[in-house]
Amino acid sequence: MAVVTNLSLKRSTPDVNALDKLTVLVADDLKACNALIIDRMQSPVELIPQLAGYIVAAGGKRLRPVLTLASARLCRYGGDRHQGLAACVEFIHTATLLHDDVVDESDLRRGLASANAVFGNKASVLVGDFLFSRAFELMVEDGSLDVLRILSHASAVIAEGEVLQLTTSNDTGTSEQAYLDVIRSKTAELFAAACQIGAVVADRPSVEEDALFAYGLNLGIAFQLVDDVLDYSALQARLGKTVGDDFREGKITLPVILAYRRGSDEERVFWNRALEEMEQGDGDLDKAIGLMNQHGALRDTVERARHYGAIARDALGIFPDSEEKTALLDVIDFVIDREF
Amino acid sequence: MAVVTNLSLKRSTPDVNALDKLTVLVADDLKACNALIIDRMQSPVELIPQLAGYIVAAGGKRLRPVLTLASARLCRYGGDRHQGLAACVEFIHTATLLHDDVVDESDLRRGLASANAVFGNKASVLVGDFLFSRAFELMVEDGSLDVLRILSHASAVIAEGEVLQLTTSNDTGTSEQAYLDVIRSKTAELFAAACQIGAVVADRPSVEEDALFAYGLNLGIAFQLVDDVLDYSALQARLGKTVGDDFREGKITLPVILAYRRGSDEERVFWNRALEEMEQGDGDLDKAIGLMNQHGALRDTVERARHYGAIARDALGIFPDSEEKTALLDVIDFVIDREF
Repeated sequence: MAVVTNLSLKRSTPDVNALDKLTVLVADDLKACNALIIDRMQSPVELIPQLAGYIVAAGGKRLRPVLTLASARLCRYGGDRHQGLAACVEFIHTATLLHDDVVDESDLRRGLASANAVFGNKASVLVGDFLFSRAFELMVEDGSLDVLRILSHASAVIAEGEVLQLTTSNDTGTSEQAYLDVIRSKTAELFAAACQIGAVVADRPSVEEDALFAYGLNLGIAFQLVDDVLDYSALQARLGKTVGDDFREGKITLPVILAYRRGSDEERVFWNRALEEMEQGDGDLDKAIGLMNQHGALRDTVERARHYGAIARDALGIFPDSEEKTALLDVIDFVIDREF
Repeated sequence: MAVVTNLSLKRSTPDVNALDKLTVLVADDLKACNALIIDRMQSPVELIPQLAGYIVAAGGKRLRPVLTLASARLCRYGGDRHQGLAACVEFIHTATLLHDDVVDESDLRRGLASANAVFGNKASVLVGDFLFSRAFELMVEDGSLDVLRILSHASAVIAEGEVLQLTTSNDTGTSEQAYLDVIRSKTAELFAAACQIGAVVADRPSVEEDALFAYGLNLGIAFQLVDDVLDYSALQARLGKTVGDDFREGKITLPVILAYRRGSDEERVFWNRALEEMEQGDGDLDKAIGLMNQHGALRDTVERARHYGAIARDALGIFPDSEEKTALLDVIDFVIDREF
C-alpha cells in the first residue's frame, strides 16, 4: 500500500461550472455591480483609477459580490440595492488585496505582476485606503445601518486576522486552532458578511441572516483551506500559476502544520530551517511537497475543507428549493474540488 | 536693509496657551474620549493594542478630537455622543499617521521612533486598517448616517490627497495650487469634518454645520502651512525636534515652491539636484533654509496661513459669543504663531 497519495485521485471530479452557473444566474445584477465598481473608483487623482482599474481588471472571480447578489436573490429580494452593496464588498476585498500584497511583499497576483510591483507599495497602501473609504461612502448612500454594522465589523475582524497571521508567520509551532482563527478572520468573515447582507436587504428574519452568515463563514473557511492546498499543488504549476508562494514567505498554513506534527524530528529540522530561519535552497519546495504527500497533509487539509463545506450545506437547509439554492450548494463542491 | 529675514522677529508673540485653554474647556469630555480610545483599541490580537497604544501614547495634541468636542459645546450640545465621535476622528487620524509613516518611510514621529520603525511596516499597515475599521464601527454604534457620510467622505478625500502628494513628490514644478489641493485634502478635510460633526450631533441648522466646516477647513490649511514652515525652522531644531524631514524626503511644500519660483537659474539647479534627483550632501539643508530666508519663503508661507486663519475667524462670526467661541478663535492664532 503506497503511503504517497496522489491528491487528484482522492478528489471527486470537480463541477467546474458551478461558479459559472451561479454567476450566470445573477448576470444582470453583476453587470450593474461591475458598472458601479468602475464608476465609483473614479477620482480626479488619475493614479487612483489607474491602479484600482489595474487590480479590478486583473480579474478574479468576483466570488464575493456574486455571493451577495445570489444571497439576495435566494431571499427573493426584488430591488437593486444588492448591486451597490456587492460593489462595497468587492471594494473592501480589493483594498485588503492591495494591502496584503504590500505586507506579503508579493510580486505576483493571479499570475500577473501585483499592483505594488507595478505602481509601488506607497500607492498600493493609499489606493487601498481610498477604496476602503469609498466602500463606506457607498454603504452610507445605501443607508442601512445594519449593513454598515456588518461590514465595518467584518473589516475590523479582517484586519485582526491579518495581524494575527503576521504574528504566526515563521512559527512552525502554530496550532491548527491558531491557523483556523487566522483564516476565519482574514478570509471567511467577509464571505459571511457578503452572504448575510443578502438577507438584510431583503428584510428577512434573523434566522435567515444567521443561516446565510453561517453558509458564507464555512464556505470561506473551506475556500481558504483549499487555497492553501493549491499553493503546493503540482496541477497549479501545470496551469502556469505560481506554486510555493506561502512556502517562500514562511507562511504557516494547515498543510505545513499537519506535515510538521506528523513528521520525524529530522523532518522538523528541515521545516524549522526552511520556514523559521528562512534558509531555503533549490529543491526545498519539492521536498516540502513530498513530505506533505507522504503524511497526507494536503489530502487531509482538503478533508478538513469538506467538513466546513458540509456545515455550509446544512446552513442553507432552512431555505426552500430554488435555482439559487441549488447553485449556492454546488458552489461549495466547486470551492473544495477546484484545481485552480 | 537686510534681505535676510529672521522669521521669529516677524511673528507676533504666540499665545502658547490657546490650545491648552481650549483643551481645559473640554477636559471632562476629553477624558471620556480618551477612555473610549483606550477601550476601543483593544483586541485579543495583542500586537494591535501594543502598536495602537504606542502611537496614541506618543501623544500629539489631540487637536482634532478637541475640535469636535469644542464645536459640539459651541453648539450648546448637552449629550455625550460627541465623546465617541471625537474618538472616531482620532482613530481615523491615527490610522492615516500609521500609513503616512509607512509611505514616507519615516523613522521618527514627534521626535520618537515611529511605529513602523518599532513594529515594522507590515504591522503598521494592518493596525492602521484595524483602527480605521474600528472608527466606522464606533460611528455605526452612534447611529448617525450624517456623521457616517461626513467621515467616510473625509476619509476618501484624505486618501486622494495622499495619493496626489505622492504624484507631486520630487517635482519642483509643482504649483502653489497643486500644493494647496494636497494639503486641503490630506489635512484640512479632517479638521473640517471634525468641526462639522459638532454641529451635526447638536442637530443645528446647516448654516452652522457649514460655518464649522469652513472654520475647520481653513484652520487645517493654516495648520499644515505652518507645519511645513516648522520643518525648516531653526527654533524647532533647538527644541530637539527633527528638522528637514520634508527636504530629505523630497516633499515639495510651499516654502520650496516659493523659494524655487523666486530663485535664480543657479538656485533652481540646486533645488532640482536636491529634491528631484535626490542628490543631497552635507550643508544642503542649511543652504535650502538660507535660500528660503533670502526669498522670504518661510515668512510668506506664514502670511498665506494668516489669510486662511482670517477666513476661519470670519466663519465663526455667526455664532453668539461664548467661552468656546473665544477659545476656538484664539486657537487660530496659536496654530499660526506656534513655534513647535
